[in-house]
Amino acid sequence: MLSFTYPGNLYMVIGPSGAGKSTLLKRLIAQDEHLSFSVSHTTRAPRAGEVHGKDYYFVDRDLFRSMIDEDAFLEWAEVHGNLYGTSKAHIVAQLEAGEDVLVDVDVQGALLLKEQLASAVSIFVAPPHAAALRARLEARGKDAADVIERRLLNARGEMQQMTKFDYLVVNDDLDRCYRDLAAVVAADRLRSFRRRALASDLLEHF
Amino acid sequence: MLSFTYPGNLYMVIGPSGAGKSTLLKRLIAQDEHLSFSVSHTTRAPRAGEVHGKDYYFVDRDLFRSMIDEDAFLEWAEVHGNLYGTSKAHIVAQLEAGEDVLVDVDVQGALLLKEQLASAVSIFVAPPHAAALRARLEARGKDAADVIERRLLNARGEMQQMTKFDYLVVNDDLDRCYRDLAAVVAADRLRSFRRRALASDLLEHF
Repeated sequence: MLSFTYPGNLYMVIGPSGAGKSTLLKRLIAQDEHLSFSVSHTTRAPRAGEVHGKDYYFVDRDLFRSMIDEDAFLEWAEVHGNLYGTSKAHIVAQLEAGEDVLVDVDVQGALLLKEQLASAVSIFVAPPHAAALRARLEARGKDAADVIERRLLNARGEMQQMTKFDYLVVNDDLDRCYRDLAAVVAADRLRSFRRRALASDLLEHF
Repeated sequence: MLSFTYPGNLYMVIGPSGAGKSTLLKRLIAQDEHLSFSVSHTTRAPRAGEVHGKDYYFVDRDLFRSMIDEDAFLEWAEVHGNLYGTSKAHIVAQLEAGEDVLVDVDVQGALLLKEQLASAVSIFVAPPHAAALRARLEARGKDAADVIERRLLNARGEMQQMTKFDYLVVNDDLDRCYRDLAAVVAADRLRSFRRRALASDLLEHF
């Protein structure tokens, strides 16, 4: 269990592969100077254009396994046959520095993170329907046909758990969905328990 | 205790008299077709321009007392020597109809309402400092000098309780404060527990 009192907070974005999370997260980061991306570790192969240390830390299974043994991950999971993990040290350093951190994490990972950091906010990004998800996965052209079928199968399992998370947004319109995500982050920063320093300061002037 | 499952939700705005709540609330209502004002009952005299049934139900102390006896109020309180109350029947009818309801309520009233409706969201609107509050109360020209002193004294007591509420916003800039309030309402509507019907609908298409 991590402290509840870091000056920064953790925002977890969950949802099926192909729901548009990457595009939404990049836009959030670009337009919000107080928000940083948490870079996960993975054993999957980099896709075209992905950069080590920026999109992911691409590591082999041996290194990943040794990190598990050293308890270096806040959460880790095997998804579509690949290992993904969130490094404890990286996130804690960001939160302690007062940065808000955005993580793209799977259903199990989000539930584990929430157990360890109660203030963390989870947002499920749902595609409007399966046909939209299939179309996006096919248009993306990054996955083979059998991988797309596996992702669609997995998506249904994730959708069945969508109400386990704090917020639910639907990506039927990218601009609206972006505004929804931005409102969730903006509102969370206005929570009283996150503004104790401000409250003390205000009281001093009364 | 009221049900948690009304299709509408209750937003409570709390803060010192003169913090700018009325202006903010009117703007929220004007720009949000799903949000209605809850009209409170009061025994205080109408100010210039205030309309019975729109700003308040202006009633005499005898009628107010009989409503208390009939348990007609969700909460009521005496503030600055006047009685204010929130009628149970009015709010429940609005929430059942799926309307989101905005109430301007005092510290004690907000805490009582939260006990009766756990989903209610409370937002404290703080002035940036006492001098700003005094200037606004004087510029408003609605209160005598002794009433202004009483309001300032009361304001400090309210400010000491500001972290008891879900959200804290500061009205040092009206436009920014309005955007903060609007983000809190927008984000709250995206909470999973408020979107169960949407979630079922989404699952049907998977």
